[in-house]
Amino acid sequence: MIQPSDDQRPAYRATVEYDGTDYAGWQIQTGRPTVQGTLETALARVCCETIRISGAGRTDAGVHASGQVIGFRSAWRHPVADLERALNAVLPAAVAVRELAVAAPGFHPRFSARSRHYGYTVWVGSVRSPLRARFAHQVKQPLDLAAMNEAAAHLVGWHDFATFGVDPEGKAGRGNTRREVMQAQWRLTVDDEGVWYRFDIEANAFLRTMVRTIVATLLAVGRGERTSADVRDLLLAAERRLAPPPAPACGLCLVHVRY
Amino acid sequence: MIQPSDDQRPAYRATVEYDGTDYAGWQIQTGRPTVQGTLETALARVCCETIRISGAGRTDAGVHASGQVIGFRSAWRHPVADLERALNAVLPAAVAVRELAVAAPGFHPRFSARSRHYGYTVWVGSVRSPLRARFAHQVKQPLDLAAMNEAAAHLVGWHDFATFGVDPEGKAGRGNTRREVMQAQWRLTVDDEGVWYRFDIEANAFLRTMVRTIVATLLAVGRGERTSADVRDLLLAAERRLAPPPAPACGLCLVHVRY
Repeated sequence: MIQPSDDQRPAYRATVEYDGTDYAGWQIQTGRPTVQGTLETALARVCCETIRISGAGRTDAGVHASGQVIGFRSAWRHPVADLERALNAVLPAAVAVRELAVAAPGFHPRFSARSRHYGYTVWVGSVRSPLRARFAHQVKQPLDLAAMNEAAAHLVGWHDFATFGVDPEGKAGRGNTRREVMQAQWRLTVDDEGVWYRFDIEANAFLRTMVRTIVATLLAVGRGERTSADVRDLLLAAERRLAPPPAPACGLCLVHVRY
Repeated sequence: MIQPSDDQRPAYRATVEYDGTDYAGWQIQTGRPTVQGTLETALARVCCETIRISGAGRTDAGVHASGQVIGFRSAWRHPVADLERALNAVLPAAVAVRELAVAAPGFHPRFSARSRHYGYTVWVGSVRSPLRARFAHQVKQPLDLAAMNEAAAHLVGWHDFATFGVDPEGKAGRGNTRREVMQAQWRLTVDDEGVWYRFDIEANAFLRTMVRTIVATLLAVGRGERTSADVRDLLLAAERRLAPPPAPACGLCLVHVRY
């Protein structure tokens, strides 16, 4: 629940965009800047009440979002458009709120979500690039796109993804690690700024570090270090210790949440 | 000159890319972080000697570069590729060096340059966008592309650009303000991330704030507040006080220097 069920204040929802570079992730932590904490501070300041927000996806440190969805309850008595403007005026440059609206009855940003869509951006270059580094992971050599897509196809459907992540609700690594991946594919773009690989993955929900661990595995396929069959075997093994370390957070973005 | 003419150390050139957001511009200043200062500190650390660098374009605070060109002299005795790697290892994430090479005899990054090419990026949105704000200027409404290009065409050729900028070499606003603009045009891009306007301008050299003052003027045309004929009249007036304040630095990038 967004708030204890005896909270009678009206419920709101909004889409949130953030540059996650300088945040210790979504979820509130004492003593470290988080996106949730930043939003709750802005809401408290604008609404003059204590407001707890809930988000559709708990992004890790350094991960970005263009389509995070939040819900909260507030006694705000003015037009909703004024609340959105006031929030964007007090929020730091790295966080913005849009599409703020009264939530439908029973709406919960996390439990009502049917799927989450993440994007991961990779660019190819031999030298560091300050203009790309904030929102993309650099690889030195071109990748085998067809091999990465053949491997990614093994992930689509209902599977136990224990190799690729940890159930955020589970204790000591135990829990439900079955998820449904609806789409997982790479596409190549070549423009004035260079060669880019973009990975799109949509699932009903994700385990912790699941997208970045999948990306690291598929990049190994793209470099010819693993085969598509290896990825199928890794998936079937359902063994966390078999996975490579996750790909860097900078390339990852929560793009959309479907309800 | 890069160094006093009695400096017998070999001359080098390199292309430099930087995210200018957190810098007080290119040119070295005491007590403030500058791109030139950052590069000179890195060179001193790697080469263990005092090195002064010269850049093709003196970008303002907050302006980016993907193709700044620098020159310097150094007694470095190892392969040039090692110097490039060592510099990129000690430079901060916001600055990188590429295409480092021994300079041709007589090469000077500023005086040998035939033209500079700047790009200015604008995106359309009603709400702030943390993922776009670092490298693009936001406008609220779509712009009249044809009108902006008709106005921009008046700027092409040899003109006195005194309305649009100040000669960086001149004293008390006096100096040579004639420059040759080789191209000045806007193009529209619509992609998954929205509606973008990109301005490309190439000139033999630019006055201080010239690109951003031209952009601010052409954006007024795009909003219907000024006409193409107004821009021609502003140019012919050659009066600094007639120009609008410059457009924000975040949208501007030094793309290429031609020799």
